[in-house]
Amino acid sequence: MSGTENKGTSRRAVLRGGLAAGAGLAVAGAARAEGTPDPLITEVQDWASSFGDPVDATPYGMPIRFESQVVRRNVEWLTESPVSSINFTPIHALEGTITPQGCAFERHHSGAIELSKPDYRLMIDGLVETPLVFTYEDLTRFPRETRTAFCECAANGGMEWGGAQLEGCQFTQGMIHNMEYVGVPLRLLLEEAGVKPEGKWVYAEGADASSNGRSMPLEKAMDDVLVAFYANGEALRKEHGYPVRLVVPGFEGNMWVKWLRRIGVYDQAVESREETSKYTDLMPDGRARKWTWVMDAKSVITSPSPQAPIYHGKGPLVITGLAWSGHGKVTRVDVSLDGGKNWQEAELTGEAQSKALTRFRLNIDWDGSELLLQSRAVDETGYVQPTKDALRAIRGTNSVYHNNGIQTWWVHENGEVENVEVA
Amino acid sequence: MSGTENKGTSRRAVLRGGLAAGAGLAVAGAARAEGTPDPLITEVQDWASSFGDPVDATPYGMPIRFESQVVRRNVEWLTESPVSSINFTPIHALEGTITPQGCAFERHHSGAIELSKPDYRLMIDGLVETPLVFTYEDLTRFPRETRTAFCECAANGGMEWGGAQLEGCQFTQGMIHNMEYVGVPLRLLLEEAGVKPEGKWVYAEGADASSNGRSMPLEKAMDDVLVAFYANGEALRKEHGYPVRLVVPGFEGNMWVKWLRRIGVYDQAVESREETSKYTDLMPDGRARKWTWVMDAKSVITSPSPQAPIYHGKGPLVITGLAWSGHGKVTRVDVSLDGGKNWQEAELTGEAQSKALTRFRLNIDWDGSELLLQSRAVDETGYVQPTKDALRAIRGTNSVYHNNGIQTWWVHENGEVENVEVA
Repeated sequence: MSGTENKGTSRRAVLRGGLAAGAGLAVAGAARAEGTPDPLITEVQDWASSFGDPVDATPYGMPIRFESQVVRRNVEWLTESPVSSINFTPIHALEGTITPQGCAFERHHSGAIELSKPDYRLMIDGLVETPLVFTYEDLTRFPRETRTAFCECAANGGMEWGGAQLEGCQFTQGMIHNMEYVGVPLRLLLEEAGVKPEGKWVYAEGADASSNGRSMPLEKAMDDVLVAFYANGEALRKEHGYPVRLVVPGFEGNMWVKWLRRIGVYDQAVESREETSKYTDLMPDGRARKWTWVMDAKSVITSPSPQAPIYHGKGPLVITGLAWSGHGKVTRVDVSLDGGKNWQEAELTGEAQSKALTRFRLNIDWDGSELLLQSRAVDETGYVQPTKDALRAIRGTNSVYHNNGIQTWWVHENGEVENVEVA
Repeated sequence: MSGTENKGTSRRAVLRGGLAAGAGLAVAGAARAEGTPDPLITEVQDWASSFGDPVDATPYGMPIRFESQVVRRNVEWLTESPVSSINFTPIHALEGTITPQGCAFERHHSGAIELSKPDYRLMIDGLVETPLVFTYEDLTRFPRETRTAFCECAANGGMEWGGAQLEGCQFTQGMIHNMEYVGVPLRLLLEEAGVKPEGKWVYAEGADASSNGRSMPLEKAMDDVLVAFYANGEALRKEHGYPVRLVVPGFEGNMWVKWLRRIGVYDQAVESREETSKYTDLMPDGRARKWTWVMDAKSVITSPSPQAPIYHGKGPLVITGLAWSGHGKVTRVDVSLDGGKNWQEAELTGEAQSKALTRFRLNIDWDGSELLLQSRAVDETGYVQPTKDALRAIRGTNSVYHNNGIQTWWVHENGEVENVEVA
């Protein structure tokens, strides 16, 4: 194990090795002999001597064809039916913190339904002074808030309870996305209906056939939950709950009810199927942890990773990944090159937001030897992301939920990367 | 003129007028008589009793068909050719601050070219110690930064110099977008090449046939300029410069060179076509203001606006819009309902970021009478967005560039909205 830190120092010495330079302007990279002219520099190319696409070519654009591999992917054997299944965000190929809606993971319990704004209704009933039904237009008349938040499936990393079973950062940790939402605080709608003093729990239910329903304490509903219409600036996509979904910052994704149709106010939790037989954590003694809503601090290195190997050989290498916490802001991420023996602090870049994805990066000078890459997040509560073994020691391996253990990538000398565990 | 503020107070009294409520749970809105059952609530709908789309339906998704009107649009008579033209972001239909790449405005000088990563080269030459050529892969080995920034065409609002000529918020002010970028600071590449002491200007040039080229002072190039690969988490789209564009926070969009192929370092500005015959501001005395790179503080109400009229009649109304400044953070936005006679402070929501779009909102209780809506941005330098007439008094009307004057929307009693000017 090796690879030494080169944070903040000039990379010139190293890049000069690969970048032939001088009066003749030869090209970078190992494939070209120094001094050989590069036609991509010395000759006029087709794209520099003809017209490209006009401005009316694509009223709404899609990614360029060269990026066609950057898509959601699913694993057929994971679930019985594709209408009650999951796919995965290609986090290994993304950067920054925003997840485009087009490739943000989906989890459906009975498929993604098509529901128009005119057909949309939201009912608030139960222990309220005045039961209410809102049309979509009604909702647009309430004060709005903007909030960026991560949505993580409780089962993200769930296969890792049993060891390194899936190859690829997308499949092991890609049940997560991060978007900028705009919506009405649920608090305002509840205040409109008037919650009775005995109302202590809120039950949110979707309009799809599964009627996916989840309970949450009234305190959370009155805190930072949004009845959201927009994500990343535009309307929610169909698969993300168009026209209205619940945004429950820091809480597991199953509670972010899509195609939201009802908010019931009760004196106790509903204990629905989705919070009893599912989304509870079966412990070694046969009892279940329940109400494990808040997603604990976690991180993962997205590149290099099994789907994002090192192609360029030794020398300067950007190690980058994502960190998040359902309890607030990520305050620190450490990276290990040797399977957790030694750690160095990564740089957090961009605006660190509470309950939202944070990007970290560590720049190293890779000497070409094997690495056991790990990352470890710390949040503002002081919580430190644990190892998988530390989690298993308490929780066992019965559950597929809430595995926020440290992920290990084994980088080989040839730059390929494998999902492994270290003892 | 009227319409009174209702910021922060309960909307219950007003909404109760429109929202029939009670034991029978009748539906909201004027179209249904109070007490009449709404089948959308009382009957099981198709979408609640059948499967929706599976998770393998759309590896990369697009907006739902109901939002097909939220697209970039161009105005054919504005330019001679669609390969050297502009289209407009549908800002009237967006919310929050992020602009999806798919509907973010485009400006091309010879069309959007298709350039693959293997074919990509970036040359740094001129007054440097060591001229260099970088492949795409070389660039990915340098330290990266994340930065959200607005990109505004210098001609945004340009038709407004001659008065209210275009209908719709999209067409008057939609040459703007705001994305989260990831890239290498240009500073690091220049340091790699080694800028000679006499190098004072940087010239950036694109790989398209127009070779769109612009000069900027070395100080800016060494400050916050990014050589960017990612926008909103994913690769740049073709029309936004895939695989590499320049991000020049706060500066006019023409300088954000797409398909970036060369950075030249010189002792003076190049004075290219794009910074002499174009992108200079012709004053009344025939002289031209030049080097007017920084986009001054500006704002616009996106809804209600001509393409986003008020459908719901009087009562609670969310007035929302965008504000920005090339000089830093927006610190305040005021809204007038009476054409600038009286102003009230709007709420700024989300994270206010320097040189990035900021969302503002004002919640009012509309009495149904006519409004002359205006917004006025103030930035951290203390600069106050001027009226169009104040700008014209100094700059005349020869130019199509740098009109950051206050926009007025005339809201009629029926909720329709017109682009007008007030004396």
